[in-house]
Amino acid sequence: MNFNVLHDETLEDLQINGLYILQKKNTFRFGMDAVLLSNFVSAGKGSKVLDLGTGTGIIPILLSAKTQAEYIAGIEIQPEIVDMAKRSVRGNALEQKIEIIHGDIKKVREFLQPGSFDTVVTNPPYMRSGSGLINPEQGKAISRHEILCTLQDVLESAATMLKPKGEFFMVNRPDRLADAIEGMRKVKLEPKLLRFVCTRYNSPPNLFLIKGLKNGNPGLKIMPNLIIYNEDGQYTDDLKVMYNIKN
Amino acid sequence: MNFNVLHDETLEDLQINGLYILQKKNTFRFGMDAVLLSNFVSAGKGSKVLDLGTGTGIIPILLSAKTQAEYIAGIEIQPEIVDMAKRSVRGNALEQKIEIIHGDIKKVREFLQPGSFDTVVTNPPYMRSGSGLINPEQGKAISRHEILCTLQDVLESAATMLKPKGEFFMVNRPDRLADAIEGMRKVKLEPKLLRFVCTRYNSPPNLFLIKGLKNGNPGLKIMPNLIIYNEDGQYTDDLKVMYNIKN
Repeated sequence: MNFNVLHDETLEDLQINGLYILQKKNTFRFGMDAVLLSNFVSAGKGSKVLDLGTGTGIIPILLSAKTQAEYIAGIEIQPEIVDMAKRSVRGNALEQKIEIIHGDIKKVREFLQPGSFDTVVTNPPYMRSGSGLINPEQGKAISRHEILCTLQDVLESAATMLKPKGEFFMVNRPDRLADAIEGMRKVKLEPKLLRFVCTRYNSPPNLFLIKGLKNGNPGLKIMPNLIIYNEDGQYTDDLKVMYNIKN
Repeated sequence: MNFNVLHDETLEDLQINGLYILQKKNTFRFGMDAVLLSNFVSAGKGSKVLDLGTGTGIIPILLSAKTQAEYIAGIEIQPEIVDMAKRSVRGNALEQKIEIIHGDIKKVREFLQPGSFDTVVTNPPYMRSGSGLINPEQGKAISRHEILCTLQDVLESAATMLKPKGEFFMVNRPDRLADAIEGMRKVKLEPKLLRFVCTRYNSPPNLFLIKGLKNGNPGLKIMPNLIIYNEDGQYTDDLKVMYNIKN
């Protein structure tokens, strides 16, 4: 293990395959959304995967352990975070599999070959531009709000980069569901599978996970809700599996 | 109580306000979807409500009891069912409040004034045209499949008939969710509220209920799931309230 950890960073054990990730002490820390998305994604043996807005690189690193993907690219616009993601990839000795690219999601075709990916995943900024309180820390704001790119920009880049029957996976908030579905159809990413994530079994959803198929036929399947906590306040078995927590 | 009941019909007690409804013994019987939709609809005092594809008139009759609507119109294309719905309205002495119209949903503007309704409700044919087994009884097929009108036809008529800030309520199946959301946005019925209906708390949804606001702003709220059966196989309290079942 050979990670270059800066003074404002921590090194976190991902509890899977001996992997670790660098995070900022106060701002850039991955959330449960990244873990849920990584577990929702399927990517076959030898597949090529692209993560749009990769942040700390958490999703490529988790997918390197959870799938048999051959190559995983992550694109991120914020240079300081790109540097951290690259050091995490190096520290985990994953340079052969994961490539972190410093660039704009909207211009991804300038960095990578359009139509060349089997799978595109994204945990995009959730907040509609102009809505909500903007986080005073600029980096955090870029990750949460549609400052540098809109949901539609992300969907267009995803559709551009996917092979004809490629698969798209996204996590987002329920209030963006209509934007997601309408926007996916606009770019011919047909919504095929939807799962809501609820804190408890009788609470409204906090997040949704959606899978789209490029040029797919209509017909959406909705899974049972994914529940985070049992009534006793403990993680459900589903969550324990995702976090590799032994009972 | 003075209902003209034909030989192939039954008269069913709706367990609310002393109301009854005529149904066919074998085919045209209202389902739980109509009850769930009627309970999802809100319609203010004095409002004008339109039911697109009213069938036996079950939704107008239930809404006459559950809301303070002043006038409720139901349009239905199948003459035999229109006759039955009219007799149910008469038998319940609701002619002052409910009008059953024999006509085509696609031509509703020829029967009623566009832009004149506060609320439009619909329990439309669920099956995409060309999909699924067609019911051999023609009437049932028209109610279930997009034979005489598509979902988009229904949405267009709904948008046409609503006042500017009018509300739209629909029940449909989860595999049509993307069609519903994309289609509603096409006609400026912004999806605002969504609720899934599940047989049990850990099962995938069987139905969804959606509310749209004409010319509304984006922003969808998703409610906790509506669960039909408790783990002991009994109706949940939510369902008991909807069916007026006393504990």
